[in-house]
This record gives sequence, structure tokens and C-alpha cells, in this order.
Amino acid sequence: MSDTRQTRNSVLLPEPTLRRLPWYLAYVAMLNQEGVENVSSRRLAQDLAVDASQIAKDLSFINIKGKTRIGYDVAELEEALRNFLGFRNRHNAVMVGAGSLGAALMHDSGLQHYGLNIVAGIDTNPKIADTVIAEIPVYTPDRLAGLVRDMDIRIGIIAVPVEHAQEVADSLVAAGVRALWNFTPRRITVPAGVVVANTSIYSHLAVMYNRLAESDSNSAES
Amino acid sequence: MSDTRQTRNSVLLPEPTLRRLPWYLAYVAMLNQEGVENVSSRRLAQDLAVDASQIAKDLSFINIKGKTRIGYDVAELEEALRNFLGFRNRHNAVMVGAGSLGAALMHDSGLQHYGLNIVAGIDTNPKIADTVIAEIPVYTPDRLAGLVRDMDIRIGIIAVPVEHAQEVADSLVAAGVRALWNFTPRRITVPAGVVVANTSIYSHLAVMYNRLAESDSNSAES
Repeated sequence: MSDTRQTRNSVLLPEPTLRRLPWYLAYVAMLNQEGVENVSSRRLAQDLAVDASQIAKDLSFINIKGKTRIGYDVAELEEALRNFLGFRNRHNAVMVGAGSLGAALMHDSGLQHYGLNIVAGIDTNPKIADTVIAEIPVYTPDRLAGLVRDMDIRIGIIAVPVEHAQEVADSLVAAGVRALWNFTPRRITVPAGVVVANTSIYSHLAVMYNRLAESDSNSAES
Repeated sequence: MSDTRQTRNSVLLPEPTLRRLPWYLAYVAMLNQEGVENVSSRRLAQDLAVDASQIAKDLSFINIKGKTRIGYDVAELEEALRNFLGFRNRHNAVMVGAGSLGAALMHDSGLQHYGLNIVAGIDTNPKIADTVIAEIPVYTPDRLAGLVRDMDIRIGIIAVPVEHAQEVADSLVAAGVRALWNFTPRRITVPAGVVVANTSIYSHLAVMYNRLAESDSNSAES
């Protein structure tokens, strides 16, 4: 247990908690920049629209407790959240599929800010392979296994057309990648022990369109 | 009830169902392209790693039923899903914040494919305002209300630094936008009736890092 990373971030948190922690971080980072020193759980609850007891519970997972009548120390909370979430570490990643969405993500410097270090791209298109996108070199698929090994790549990002998602997932796993970030709407299957995160931004569009149609329908009735 | 859009998409579906429907669509579109005519709920369940009874329940919301021993008609299912999800309609949107992430999303032609029509960008940075990104003109913030009115914009996409998220949300709502797609990790509050979809891709990173650390810790112990 001498590995600090392990002791710090190896608690398996409930996913809803893990998804809320970055909200807290974004908010307290903003307060910190504004020079605010303490924040009450009541203010956090109000500004983030999350129940105060839920916030206290979420933060207890990372051993943060507020002080009576003072609340949370803003700088301390920011530091603890940033460390816990792994945003301070660098996680090397390869982007498979450097087309529209893949290239867009390679251009997003925000990912770097959150610890994701995209060190290489892969694309089958001869017009894209062997180019450089946002200072990241793009290679042909035959280079994948060597890149993963030589560049200490632990995360594979999948931004290929949906019909290739599973085969790309398979080749990333075979190459030794430990986690997959899947941007396609295709559900992929992986061996036990491989981490999968799904970010299907188009699914969020579907939710939004549906709610919008519902809202239109309510206005029409009233 | 003569508005076909309203009758088609005004059923308020559970969000988990709505998020799964695009998975089904992506999968059956792939089958359709491959010339497959029918798909059993068993195959759907296996390939998508969703329970067969859940799939049947999800599809019943959009009045799709499989046939005994034949399963679902692939082309029919694709058509029904695409229509229901609103991906065939054009939804005009404005991108507020055309920096790293905002510009990246403007470059993603996939969004257009899913019915999102980004017709304008807004940015406070004088180096970005009055330019054109991916053929989409970018304007200064004072143009927002006029653009929303003149271009029939119903969706506002928020890709600004986190400390400006709420004020941008407020100005979009004041301009008459009906739905907000928030890409910042800041929770925003809006009046009743305004739709909010949150896509905090950095939150997904936090989940992935945590699972990865947990998986490392398990391997170290075994």
C-alpha cells in the first residue's frame, strides 16, 4: 500500500457520485479564483441544485468534512477533488478514428487540462494517416500495438464509424490498453477487467429533442 | 393533435430508454447496410448487452413489436427509431463559446447527421468573433437575441468557461431559446419549461480514471 495513487483513488465510488464530483470541483475552483475562502454546504446545494445531504455524503467518500458554521475550506476542497479525480495525473491515450469527431476531440485542449494526454491518433484513411492533427501524429492501424507498448498508452478512445467500433475495441484490448472511451453509439463488449466509459453525445441529443417536443406539446395545450 | 411532430414525439419517455434507443438505431442501421432483413430480440440483446425484455419494453414505447420467430423488421425498425428520435428533423442551434471545445463541436459533421443544425456561433474573444468556423459564422454576444429570433434558433449549446455558464444560460433563455445543451461541468438553473441536457465529457473521464485505478489495484493484489 505504498503506492499513493493506489491508496488515493482505488475506492470504487458509485458512478453518480463520481459524476457529481467534477461539478463540485468546477464550482469550488471558480470560488477559489474569486477569492472565496469558505463555502457552506447550503450554498453548494443551492448553486449546484444537489441536495445538501447528498453533497455531504459524496464528499465523505473522499474524506472531506465541512466545519460547523464555517463550511468547507474552498482551497482544500479544490485540491482534494482534483487529486482524487486523477485530473492531476497524465493518462496517455490513443485516438482511434481521427475523422470529424476524433479530430475535434484532439483539438480540445480541455481534455489535456483534465489529465488526458492524447499522444497518437490512428486512422485507416490514407489522407488522414501520416498527418499531424493539433500537434498529435496520426498513424496507420498496423502501428497500434507498437505505439501502445512504446508510448505507455493505457486508454484507447474510439471515434470510428459505428460498424467498426467492436473490432477497434478488440484490437485496442489485444494491444494492451486498459480502458476504452467509446464515443460511438455502439455498445461494445470487452473482457473482464477492461474499463469502458461510454460518451454517446448523440444519445443526449435524442433526450433533448424528446423533452423539447414534450415541452412544445405542453405549451400548445395551455 | 394535427401536428404530426407533436403526436410522434411528445410521449415523455424514461431517460434510460431514450438513451438506449440511439444504440438500437446505430445497430439496426448497421444491419440494414449489411442487407440483414430481420433481427431477433435475442440477437439484439446479445450484441447490445441489454436484456431482451428491456429491449421489448423500450421498443413498445414507440409502438414497435417483433413478430414471433421472425423478430423485428430491420428497415422498419431503423425508420421508426430515426423518426421517433427526431434525428430526421433539423433543429437550429447556436454555439455559445467557439473556443477549443465549441469549435471542435462545430467541426463535427456527426451532429448535423443527427439533426442538429448549428447555424451560428457566439464568442466574446475578438479574435474569434466575426470569423467563420467550419462554414458557420461566429458573432459577438450582442448579436445573440437577434440571431435567435431571425434564424429560428431553439437550442443553445454552452461551451464557455465554467464561470460564465450560468450567465450564458440566462442570456440564451432571455433570447427565447427553448433548450440548452450544457457542455460545462457547471450545473445551470433555468426556468420551468426550458429543457437542459448536460454532457460533461470530463465527468466521464473521472469515472474512467477511478475504474482504472481500481482495476490496477485489483491486479496488484492478485
